[in-house]
Amino acid sequence: MNFSSKLIEEAVSEFAKLPGVGRKTALRFVLYLLKKDQKDTETFGNALIQLHQNLKHCKECHTISDQEICEICSNSSRDHSIVCVVEDIRDVMAIESTAQYKGVYHVLGGIISPMDGIGPADLNMESLVTKAGTGQVKEVIMALSTTMEGDTTNFYIYKRLKGFTLKVSTIARGISIGDELEYADEVTLGRSILNRTPYENSLSHL
Amino acid sequence: MNFSSKLIEEAVSEFAKLPGVGRKTALRFVLYLLKKDQKDTETFGNALIQLHQNLKHCKECHTISDQEICEICSNSSRDHSIVCVVEDIRDVMAIESTAQYKGVYHVLGGIISPMDGIGPADLNMESLVTKAGTGQVKEVIMALSTTMEGDTTNFYIYKRLKGFTLKVSTIARGISIGDELEYADEVTLGRSILNRTPYENSLSHL
Repeated sequence: MNFSSKLIEEAVSEFAKLPGVGRKTALRFVLYLLKKDQKDTETFGNALIQLHQNLKHCKECHTISDQEICEICSNSSRDHSIVCVVEDIRDVMAIESTAQYKGVYHVLGGIISPMDGIGPADLNMESLVTKAGTGQVKEVIMALSTTMEGDTTNFYIYKRLKGFTLKVSTIARGISIGDELEYADEVTLGRSILNRTPYENSLSHL
Repeated sequence: MNFSSKLIEEAVSEFAKLPGVGRKTALRFVLYLLKKDQKDTETFGNALIQLHQNLKHCKECHTISDQEICEICSNSSRDHSIVCVVEDIRDVMAIESTAQYKGVYHVLGGIISPMDGIGPADLNMESLVTKAGTGQVKEVIMALSTTMEGDTTNFYIYKRLKGFTLKVSTIARGISIGDELEYADEVTLGRSILNRTPYENSLSHL
């Protein structure tokens, strides 16, 4: 595409770098911004610039935060003896929105993926092992995805934490609430029978 | 969604204002930017800020340009006696990429749409009439969309230019090259028979 302006070309190129955005969509975004006030676009630009400049990672759980210690880790009413291991901040937000979890988190910042050249050293792994070694953690819940990479990471964490006196668990896998059994995949259905829960437990979340 | 950081919340809100972008996609964009270098995100932010600040509209054709007079209008090898009326810069880019048009453009900046409260006074209409009145324009080609709004705008322009000694034409509507007749809609097929072209003309673009 030939742009009549270098400024437009630059803005389009930047938008087109975003995941799932091509040059046509990027141009649509740019023309939309041009129709709005200059002030709005400047606010947008400044929000992006400040995003990186002022953002911190929590020293305890490595989640993204405005403070040195995030709101969850600095909250004394939460159970600091239960640590939920997640891949990134989106998983923290998803679990937080359930309002069912009262422990704290540990954000790995990715999962072990030899294909992408990501090993344990690239993740926030040592700080998890250090945290587990203090003796203050009673349970580590692994809430990683059920991909091959997620399973590898689960197994790695399990092996590293084996020597400590703490429980290592994973979140329950099974049929989603509201789903029909006949449409469920065999692996999930099979595991949901193997890992059946006492009937009283299934009432507790209602 | 609860964000752990105000900076993320601001960036997500800004992205979510873009057409077709929801808050989940916006968060995906923000997390993608956070994984990249701080410098890249700053370049992105600055590109947006400069977009509005330094951008000009060509004084002749109202297209977006870095100069006072755009490259097309200042090009003396182009035929300034033929003016193609388009809705916005995307149409200019589409026609330019065909490399078939050697005249100049006139960007209306929209089309007449009473539903959205857009009348002729909101568009670059008077400058088109002034341009046509100089006597240097021999032909005005209308390349607006075939919606009700486009037809209204076409008719308005036609009435305004009626008094001048110039040709007013519209781009040809017909069956796309490569399309099967049986799948064409009746209106298009009907008009393509009414406005049939001499066979020699159909060879010229091959």
